[in-house]
Amino acid sequence: MAAVQDNLTAVLYGINDMRLEQRPIPEPNDIQVLLRMEVVGICGSDVHYLTHGKIGPFVVEKPMVIGHEAAGTVVKCGKDVKHLQPGDRVAIEPGCPCRMCDFCKTGKYNLCPDMKFCATPPYDGNLCRFYVHDADFCFKLPCNMDFEEGTLIEPLAVGVHACKRASVKIGDLCVVFGSGPIGLVTMMSAKAMGAGKVLVTDVLDVKLEKAKQLGADYILKVDPSWNDEKTAKEIQSILRGAEPDSCFDCTGGEIIVRTALQITKAGGVVVVIGMGAEFDMKLPLANSVMKEVDLRGIFRYANDYPTAIEMVRSRRVNVKPLITHHFTLEDAIKAFETHIKKEGDPIKIMIHTNPNWKPT
Amino acid sequence: MAAVQDNLTAVLYGINDMRLEQRPIPEPNDIQVLLRMEVVGICGSDVHYLTHGKIGPFVVEKPMVIGHEAAGTVVKCGKDVKHLQPGDRVAIEPGCPCRMCDFCKTGKYNLCPDMKFCATPPYDGNLCRFYVHDADFCFKLPCNMDFEEGTLIEPLAVGVHACKRASVKIGDLCVVFGSGPIGLVTMMSAKAMGAGKVLVTDVLDVKLEKAKQLGADYILKVDPSWNDEKTAKEIQSILRGAEPDSCFDCTGGEIIVRTALQITKAGGVVVVIGMGAEFDMKLPLANSVMKEVDLRGIFRYANDYPTAIEMVRSRRVNVKPLITHHFTLEDAIKAFETHIKKEGDPIKIMIHTNPNWKPT
Amino acid sequence: MAAVQDNLTAVLYGINDMRLEQRPIPEPNDIQVLLRMEVVGICGSDVHYLTHGKIGPFVVEKPMVIGHEAAGTVVKCGKDVKHLQPGDRVAIEPGCPCRMCDFCKTGKYNLCPDMKFCATPPYDGNLCRFYVHDADFCFKLPCNMDFEEGTLIEPLAVGVHACKRASVKIGDLCVVFGSGPIGLVTMMSAKAMGAGKVLVTDVLDVKLEKAKQLGADYILKVDPSWNDEKTAKEIQSILRGAEPDSCFDCTGGEIIVRTALQITKAGGVVVVIGMGAEFDMKLPLANSVMKEVDLRGIFRYANDYPTAIEMVRSRRVNVKPLITHHFTLEDAIKAFETHIKKEGDPIKIMIHTNPNWKPT
Amino acid sequence: MAAVQDNLTAVLYGINDMRLEQRPIPEPNDIQVLLRMEVVGICGSDVHYLTHGKIGPFVVEKPMVIGHEAAGTVVKCGKDVKHLQPGDRVAIEPGCPCRMCDFCKTGKYNLCPDMKFCATPPYDGNLCRFYVHDADFCFKLPCNMDFEEGTLIEPLAVGVHACKRASVKIGDLCVVFGSGPIGLVTMMSAKAMGAGKVLVTDVLDVKLEKAKQLGADYILKVDPSWNDEKTAKEIQSILRGAEPDSCFDCTGGEIIVRTALQITKAGGVVVVIGMGAEFDMKLPLANSVMKEVDLRGIFRYANDYPTAIEMVRSRRVNVKPLITHHFTLEDAIKAFETHIKKEGDPIKIMIHTNPNWKPT
Repeated sequence: MAAVQDNLTAVLYGINDMRLEQRPIPEPNDIQVLLRMEVVGICGSDVHYLTHGKIGPFVVEKPMVIGHEAAGTVVKCGKDVKHLQPGDRVAIEPGCPCRMCDFCKTGKYNLCPDMKFCATPPYDGNLCRFYVHDADFCFKLPCNMDFEEGTLIEPLAVGVHACKRASVKIGDLCVVFGSGPIGLVTMMSAKAMGAGKVLVTDVLDVKLEKAKQLGADYILKVDPSWNDEKTAKEIQSILRGAEPDSCFDCTGGEIIVRTALQITKAGGVVVVIGMGAEFDMKLPLANSVMKEVDLRGIFRYANDYPTAIEMVRSRRVNVKPLITHHFTLEDAIKAFETHIKKEGDPIKIMIHTNPNWKPT
Repeated sequence: MAAVQDNLTAVLYGINDMRLEQRPIPEPNDIQVLLRMEVVGICGSDVHYLTHGKIGPFVVEKPMVIGHEAAGTVVKCGKDVKHLQPGDRVAIEPGCPCRMCDFCKTGKYNLCPDMKFCATPPYDGNLCRFYVHDADFCFKLPCNMDFEEGTLIEPLAVGVHACKRASVKIGDLCVVFGSGPIGLVTMMSAKAMGAGKVLVTDVLDVKLEKAKQLGADYILKVDPSWNDEKTAKEIQSILRGAEPDSCFDCTGGEIIVRTALQITKAGGVVVVIGMGAEFDMKLPLANSVMKEVDLRGIFRYANDYPTAIEMVRSRRVNVKPLITHHFTLEDAIKAFETHIKKEGDPIKIMIHTNPNWKPT
Repeated sequence: MAAVQDNLTAVLYGINDMRLEQRPIPEPNDIQVLLRMEVVGICGSDVHYLTHGKIGPFVVEKPMVIGHEAAGTVVKCGKDVKHLQPGDRVAIEPGCPCRMCDFCKTGKYNLCPDMKFCATPPYDGNLCRFYVHDADFCFKLPCNMDFEEGTLIEPLAVGVHACKRASVKIGDLCVVFGSGPIGLVTMMSAKAMGAGKVLVTDVLDVKLEKAKQLGADYILKVDPSWNDEKTAKEIQSILRGAEPDSCFDCTGGEIIVRTALQITKAGGVVVVIGMGAEFDMKLPLANSVMKEVDLRGIFRYANDYPTAIEMVRSRRVNVKPLITHHFTLEDAIKAFETHIKKEGDPIKIMIHTNPNWKPT
Repeated sequence: MAAVQDNLTAVLYGINDMRLEQRPIPEPNDIQVLLRMEVVGICGSDVHYLTHGKIGPFVVEKPMVIGHEAAGTVVKCGKDVKHLQPGDRVAIEPGCPCRMCDFCKTGKYNLCPDMKFCATPPYDGNLCRFYVHDADFCFKLPCNMDFEEGTLIEPLAVGVHACKRASVKIGDLCVVFGSGPIGLVTMMSAKAMGAGKVLVTDVLDVKLEKAKQLGADYILKVDPSWNDEKTAKEIQSILRGAEPDSCFDCTGGEIIVRTALQITKAGGVVVVIGMGAEFDMKLPLANSVMKEVDLRGIFRYANDYPTAIEMVRSRRVNVKPLITHHFTLEDAIKAFETHIKKEGDPIKIMIHTNPNWKPT
């Protein structure tokens, strides 16, 4: 069966050096499944590894397969796999933890120090034709969801995790700073978890229009020259006295986190969504103290895939409008270039790894 | 009854202008009690009002009675008071909230914007002979506790609230930065709530000795020249690889909060205990993000008096060694001077407001 | 102003003895508002007091104004009322707690032993023209909600409270036993809080059709002859192996609670929604124990009105189809008779207390 | 090394048919350790399997090694074991879950349906000389704890789990029904977690004396003829009006659970500690409903070993007085007979599996 022998794979060899090469098709162990990869999305972190060779403490020191936002079809099951069978379509949660440390045993496996996470050095990702993964981190797609939606579960899970950390509940007022992919999934997660109103900020009109289209109740175009006081004032003016229960920083900007601490309601939460960067911020802690506003970071997700899948299945969230571009695996390098050059205002770029995929 | 007419009261008229004067004895309303004040402790915030006339947004704009760490004896009950009667000895929780806002209704009354808090402008405190207070914020002292212990429930409640916010539980490893009164009550609260080991830091040997005496498992003398990296390294060396579940900043220092964020275990908590100051801090947020370490402030306490009283009643905590000095109400000004000049290494100074008090 | 002098009031004098009589218009105290009553719904408990004179420990011992599901218009504000003004349309949360006990201070005011609850003896309800109520228990209606919806916030809050006690979250599978008004609001609350699928049972087709119309994903007609084993088997057959995260008993039937304990997923919750009845049930506790399934009762609600209002405002929940009948206050007795005789399959009967109301 | 070849093992062949036989010494896999067993305690469930051949749904269908309360010494480590090395003394948590289901991933591994639990059919226990176990379920004993204490961590963990499910906190008032081993560890756990006062009941004076000795604040001898009303009245009389925050049933008796539901404070918790039995109980649910008292079962423990070990290490709990008898492995059958015949009022019987053990 010739087709099966094809395992074209996108490998990062160094800064700006990504190559497509054939690799052997791996064998699943007892608890794994072999997957035919269907769609892999490009994430900002993939691009960052390509252009910088590292993110924070994670450094690419040997050739690494790229890709971690992915969906596939089960081809073969390890002997202990019970809940999946060949033909099942799945969304792939890209990190497999050690299952044995205190973090794993207490439900916080995203903090496991021995996590093996796709395309985080030294672990290979899954932008390829065939790939093996622990079966329990493959989530069967409901019949009303397609592979592209399956792929987008990964970024959506980040938004879900952020909103769970902020305990978003029915009627909450939320502010999401930044209207890139993570800002958008956070906004949509907040709405799905019950937020009454969500305000989204950005510096670009095109991004704010997308936020509006996807459900933002208010948008605010932030001028890069604004300081925190000015930004706070503009937001407060839109909210007419109402104070947000939670704020989400999806920008990594000091002025934004400063603004968030100032406008959040007493007893509320400011969530900083992690991009792996090392950074110092000068922050007005008096707000944390006098108002008991918590500053909480998030790192990836844990037990959030089922929630994210349910959000899409139930149509509480529509992730499809995030998709702006489609490429085949053979054109993966072009796909990355498109992201880097921002050609056509990319939000989410889909790379179709199944050779039988046809553009619709 | 001549004695009853005496209501000598310590009134702050301005910066460094505290006067003792007679005031009328107030009448309790239906839900209040009239208290004969027994012991009032001096808190750093009382002294700060005396020496600076304000703390953060709270400014003394008209004469204000000072004092808020206090215990008294019920003299008279309003007609709706059920759980107290004349003769009852009580610890006084100094803040009475509005009872009607969302914060009050959801159990977070310390965040009530209409809080009336003793000796926080514009509300009078209780360093006087007679004082009225809402009965439900007066907590009956168990028979094995004296008035001095009743007075110390106030600072202890701050430590309790801090430890509840950090969810200290059996076996936790904690670090308390600063060995002043608040650092000490935080350390003792953490131990009482189950902390396995607590490390306390300070810049002064005399304070660290007190921490050791009161139960600290490890102490570290911090040199004011150390940066966060050095401080973290010294602590890690003492803890031999173990990472603290929670850290408590009782110093207000940027280097300390930076250190805390770096050494805290993934998923742990850094609590910043509020002193009402306005301050900016440059903080390494990557730790909050990559390790999901929360930064939580605390503001006073809510529903913590019963816990603090039980800690003392059950002898899980011994607050008595915090007391270093005793004065009569007539000597209140001298008491404050002693605090300011740090004569005799004061930790907690007791002012005995009952004219019949005799030093033992 | 003649109209203002009219305060026609529905007073329960004894079993099956309800009378309409004029009462003086009351004056609000400092923290109250005077309300012109607009719409009052009939609840099963109102009817029970009328037909039995008591519910559990609550006995009608002197004439009592009936009615507690209500909405009104602010006519006059007490001097300390800040958030309302004359003309404001409000939903009325019918219970005012003592604000001073531990339950009140910790956010569980529904458990306050000194609760004054409309139409629970000895406290008067609000089926009348004019009524005073504590302002902070009057919730301003959003502009897209009418008085009938305001009235239905009361039963909806019961469903919200039940779902909060069960911690319903996105994707949960829920079973609601009983498709009367409380079953319906519970089902709708569960859906609004994220339940992926809700199965509703009842013994009557007409009630199940309403459940289906209002959003139930599955319905099951239970035959009164079924035991718990049979009922469980029928439900499991519909759910095809999936186990409910939470079950809600809105019937008070032993077989139902037995069924619920058996089918609920390990670690899940069975909520028993209270009707004030005294009852013993023979229950299979092995399920509670081996599967750690919690059995939790609920009593009214606390801090749930804002959530319920937001559910309706945001159109997550449509309560309007619950309304089956309309009467004027003058026809209140006929309204109750309609409920008792079940004429026209009543779910929620609205009594319009504003004399200017016109049927549409 | 002849001694190493000796793996004397206690095997249950059928009802009242336990045999000592030699079995091969097993080899640890990559994540396991080989343990030289040191001390194994006898639990009521071990005895029940011996005398009845089953507990609830768990039936002994083929020869099964008995024993699950155990401590041992690491002899050999699998290649992936990092935190242990030969010579380490450990307490053994007897259940290894699948690590892959939702329960395992969310920190509730005690509910894992694929749990392999020592001496629960069909899995072998560890009353033998040598035994392999997953390394991460072996907890290193602090230097101030001996093997007997290590063995008693197992029952203590049940008490810890029960108290965590009841959220016991500083100052709580608790009632523990039943003063057998589980009642005693529950009482001790409650005290260690902060309970202000604990009342323990039993029908036997000798058991109540032990409770008193181990720290019970109040004891009550219950007459088997008492109904729930009488039992409640007697407890209330001792507590003089105070209502327990939580009650723990360690008897499995209907009257006891009925009593507990009646006396527990509104908003409190009744914990039913599981013994695997199938049983129906007639319960007064009105209390659950009107007072929102939760009925919660517990099944074994999850993430409780570290807490239990810390309680003993820190001397918050002294488990040693629970030990009443000592036997060698060769005398295991006699040890079980002693338990069955209740010779010498056994509480905890230790079987020393190390052939070098000498009675002290």
